[in-house]
Order: sequence, then C-alpha cells, then structure tokens
Amino acid sequence: MDAIDDANQLRETPKNEVMSFFESAPLLKDAAEIEKSLKEFVDRNTSSSGNLSGKANRVVCITSGGTTVPLEKQCVRYIDNFSSGHRGAASTEYFLNAGYSVVFLYRRGSCQPFCSSLPDDPLLECFSVADDSSIEVDALHAETVKSAITENRAAVAEGILLKLPFTTIFEYLQILQLISVSLRDVGPSAIFFLAAAVSDFYVPWESMALHKIQSASGPLDIRLTQVPKMLSMLRNEWAPMAFHISFKLETDTDILLAKANMALKQYKMHMVIANELSTRKEVVIVVTEQEKVTVRRDCTRAGAEVESPLVELVVDRHSTYIKKFDA
Amino acid sequence: MDAIDDANQLRETPKNEVMSFFESAPLLKDAAEIEKSLKEFVDRNTSSSGNLSGKANRVVCITSGGTTVPLEKQCVRYIDNFSSGHRGAASTEYFLNAGYSVVFLYRRGSCQPFCSSLPDDPLLECFSVADDSSIEVDALHAETVKSAITENRAAVAEGILLKLPFTTIFEYLQILQLISVSLRDVGPSAIFFLAAAVSDFYVPWESMALHKIQSASGPLDIRLTQVPKMLSMLRNEWAPMAFHISFKLETDTDILLAKANMALKQYKMHMVIANELSTRKEVVIVVTEQEKVTVRRDCTRAGAEVESPLVELVVDRHSTYIKKFDA
Repeated sequence: MDAIDDANQLRETPKNEVMSFFESAPLLKDAAEIEKSLKEFVDRNTSSSGNLSGKANRVVCITSGGTTVPLEKQCVRYIDNFSSGHRGAASTEYFLNAGYSVVFLYRRGSCQPFCSSLPDDPLLECFSVADDSSIEVDALHAETVKSAITENRAAVAEGILLKLPFTTIFEYLQILQLISVSLRDVGPSAIFFLAAAVSDFYVPWESMALHKIQSASGPLDIRLTQVPKMLSMLRNEWAPMAFHISFKLETDTDILLAKANMALKQYKMHMVIANELSTRKEVVIVVTEQEKVTVRRDCTRAGAEVESPLVELVVDRHSTYIKKFDA
Repeated sequence: MDAIDDANQLRETPKNEVMSFFESAPLLKDAAEIEKSLKEFVDRNTSSSGNLSGKANRVVCITSGGTTVPLEKQCVRYIDNFSSGHRGAASTEYFLNAGYSVVFLYRRGSCQPFCSSLPDDPLLECFSVADDSSIEVDALHAETVKSAITENRAAVAEGILLKLPFTTIFEYLQILQLISVSLRDVGPSAIFFLAAAVSDFYVPWESMALHKIQSASGPLDIRLTQVPKMLSMLRNEWAPMAFHISFKLETDTDILLAKANMALKQYKMHMVIANELSTRKEVVIVVTEQEKVTVRRDCTRAGAEVESPLVELVVDRHSTYIKKFDA
C-alpha cells in the first residue's frame, strides 16, 4: 500500500472509466437549481464586452474540504478524507480581496470564508445574553465576529461569492463538472483552485451493499476501486482554456516533490501546490513547469496566513497566463 | 457482508481482545485532565450523605456522534460512522430538565445540546451587523438563539453539564472507560445512554500504514478487524451497578428487533433502543426483558421531539431500577 507510484500512473485516464463512474453514480439532486445559480453568477460577474485581462471578469472555482465515499447505499459508514477546509476558506477571502468572483465548492460542515479564525463553536463560545435579554459578543471576539458577519453578508449580497455544498465524491465530481461547463465562456480568466481532499478510492454504486454492513464474527475485507483521475478530464475536456491549480498533500516529505512533479506532467496542470501535512499552515511549495517557489507565512505579523502570499503569487501567474491569450 | 449475526455472536468478548485493543491504542492525550474534571464533576453533583433515589444524585453519561477509524497513523483517510449527534444532544437537554447531571461524550463538530433546532451555521445565518455596528439577531431566530446561549451557559456554569470531545474509536473507548470508573461510586443512580455510532471494524494501530496510502494503479484491499464488543466490559467490569442503555440502528426493518433482542441478551443491557435510519426522528422502540414500548414523537406539537417522551420513559424505568437497590 505504500509503494510510490510508478510510470504506469502516467497513462491517460481512459474515457470509459470516467463515463462508467458518472453513469453508475446516484443522480445529483438539485442539478437544475445548481445550473441556474451558476448561470446567474456567471452573467452577473462577467461582461461579454469586458476586457479579459480586467480582474472584474476573473472567476475562481475553489474546492474545499474532503469528499466521502459511502460504503453502503443507505449510508451508515463511509470513508472520509481529513480536511478542515481552512485552506479553501482562507483562500476565498484573499481571492475576493484581489477582485475575483468565487464559486466556493465546499464540504458540508467544513470551514467557511471569513470564519477561519473563529472558535469551533462561535455561538456558544463568543456570545452571552445580557440582563435586558439583548445578545452580546464577548469583547475578546467582538471584532472577529463582526467582520465575519459583515464580510460574508456583503460578499453574498454583492453576488460575488456563490457557495455550493457537497458531501460524497459522487456529488463533488458532478457539481465540479457543472461548474466547469458554466465557466467555459470565461475562458482563460477562470481559475480552478482544487484544494479539496478528493477520495482516491471508492466503492462503485452498483457493487455497494444496500443495507448497513453487519458485524459478523470475523474480519471485514473491503475492495476499493480507484476513482478515475478526473483532473485530466477537467483540464482537457471540461475547461480546456482555464488556469488549473491542483494540490498535493503528503505526510512523507521524501516523496512530496516527486509526486507534485508527476501531477504537473500527468494532468498538464499549470501549477501544483505541494504541502506536507504537519507544516501545511506554515509553508507550501508552488511548482510550475518554469519554477519552484517556496511560499511562507509571514511570521512577523500576528494572524498572518500562508494563503495571503500564496494567492498573491497565483494572481500574478494568472495575469501572465491571461496576457498570452490577449497577445 | 449482509448475513444476519448468528449464534456465534452470543459468545462473551474475550478479555485478551479488549486488553490488546487498549494496549495497542495510541495514548490518550489529556487523560489526567479528563480524570480531574470528572472527579470534580462527580464531587459536585453527588453527595455521599444523599438519598440514592433523589434525582439530585442522578448522573447520566450520554455518548453522541460517530467514532472514526483512522486508516493511516498520520491520518489523511478514515472510516466514519454517520451520526449528526442530534439524538444525544436533544436527550441531554431532556435529562438536564429531569434533574440529572450529564457527562456529554461527543464527537468533535457534532450537534450540541440547546443548538439542535438552529440552522447549520448560526453565526452566518442568524446574525447581522446594524448601522451602529452592534450585532443583531434576525427576528426569526431570536428566541431560539437566545435560549441556546442562555441555557448552555447556565448548565456549564452550574457544573451540571460536562462536555468531553472525541474523534477516533481509540479516544472514545479510553474516555468511556475513565468515565465509567469515575461514576462507579454513583452506583445504580448512574445511567449509560450510549447513543454514539461506534465503529464495528478498525485497523489495529500496530498494523496501520504510517503514511498516506498511495493510489497505485490497481484496486485497494483493506482488511478490517472487528472492534472488541466493549459493551460487555462496560456492563460487567467497568460499571456493573449502573443502568445501561444501548442503541441499535439498522436500515433494514426486518432484522431490527431481532438485533435489539440479541444485544439485550448478549450484553445484558437493561434497555435497548431500536431505531430505523429513515424514521429515527419519528419513532423508536424501547426493548427491555419485560416489555417492548413504541415511543413516538408528539405530532400535534410543533417542534416536539421523540427524545422528550423517550427520556421520560427512561427516567421512569431508571427510578424503578434504583428502588430495587433501596429495598
């Protein structure tokens, strides 16, 4: 299970694997509603007469949190991918500040934009009820709470932040496809910033147990199938003009850069952001065909996040990318 | 995988399986701190001179939410058990109202007492910032939000609600053992109300992959070992005097009552609460040696929960149980 990927991995993902994944997946609920909100979002945030290099027309799809893989159709047990969603939530804030509109495709219950520096349970931890029965925020958290509420309301009201939730790998990939089709007209002004922790293995829907798996007296053997590598599909078929950024998270530093390079080549990503589980909040390495840039959190500023210089770098490289199309 | 448990299941859990589970489990962080807070909680809520049948001395340990099973030591992937924690959180409120003190052993991020009727993300959904920069609650949610904040603060301040979080099956079972030892002196006045969705299968720590499992080109086979049935240990060794209630959740109605009866006999539970995934918020069946009682939500009252009549019934049967010891 610990073998490093070999050259076999460089093969293209066969289209029939992808087709069979989608054909066997449970139907996405609310697909029509999601398409409608995406269409309105794109109409609102791009103008056909606009200058493609103007940031006003720039859109980023940020995926965030982990996808689940159900082990039963009437799901009691599932395999999950650890991800608080902090990276995606914080990056959303910096992209909005940089003038981008954001489609935030997030795991239900994961970290939300503008809330990443709040306690786990802000309602019970930050508030109290005064004698006159009005609700008060504790002084310690007042500023953070106020700016979270204000900035979130503003972004949603201005229509520059569209939040779409998912739970399973099936929902995630189907919604991602809808987003990529909706953003096709945005061309090179669109970024896919794929920070979600996506399941590598799953149980195909048709071979899944219907009911809760019973605990018999022996061990349980589960055979998991590899999820087709959708990055190739996204890059080559769904959104061929967009600027594509994927993430590589490992716990073993020795293989991290090799794996990041592999992803860059295999999926023709424009940028791979390599990060190691234990230091991911301090430092990431941005890998492109031309460069390897180490991006660090500004330790001299309290509350500074590594996502601030990271998004700054991404925006700069995205500008260069767009210019190539203008020329 | 779908076979109904057979008579083999009625065997006792061998003690060496349990010992080996605990010996190989990663060490519980903060064990000393948890023991200290439990000791203070028990001292505060029971008096040695008290009358055992007085509710003032009654304590319930409510477990809530699902336990996880890591698939890697440096955990990226894990198997999770679906459970919002709503049952445990709502039951906590009703037990507090009935005069019990509550140890709430809950999955991090799961539903909290007094918050079960709030939206998923109360901070962003219920609040706004007024022109004078004060924080306001939307009229629609004002009462629910206020009572959530007030009642939670009151319960914590009075010291009648002790919240202890867990994530993995290893943490859950180690903390449950600490609680059972701490509640030993409470004798028959203690209830274990085991609403958590506990993993049946796990990967033993010593055979677990150290790093993130690599996605090679083929399928992935995982062999899971059965978690030793700790209910027997809890019932017979850790807290032999307490009143024990376990839950049986199934998606297949046909096997539900048979499984509930099996659990009653196998683990010598005083009560098993049987519930079916799709109707669990409407109806549960309380199974004891003497009776089978169907408990339904009061559909005539808006906002009524099935946990209200359920806890009422539990408290009544617990009173009868305590009286046997007084006699």
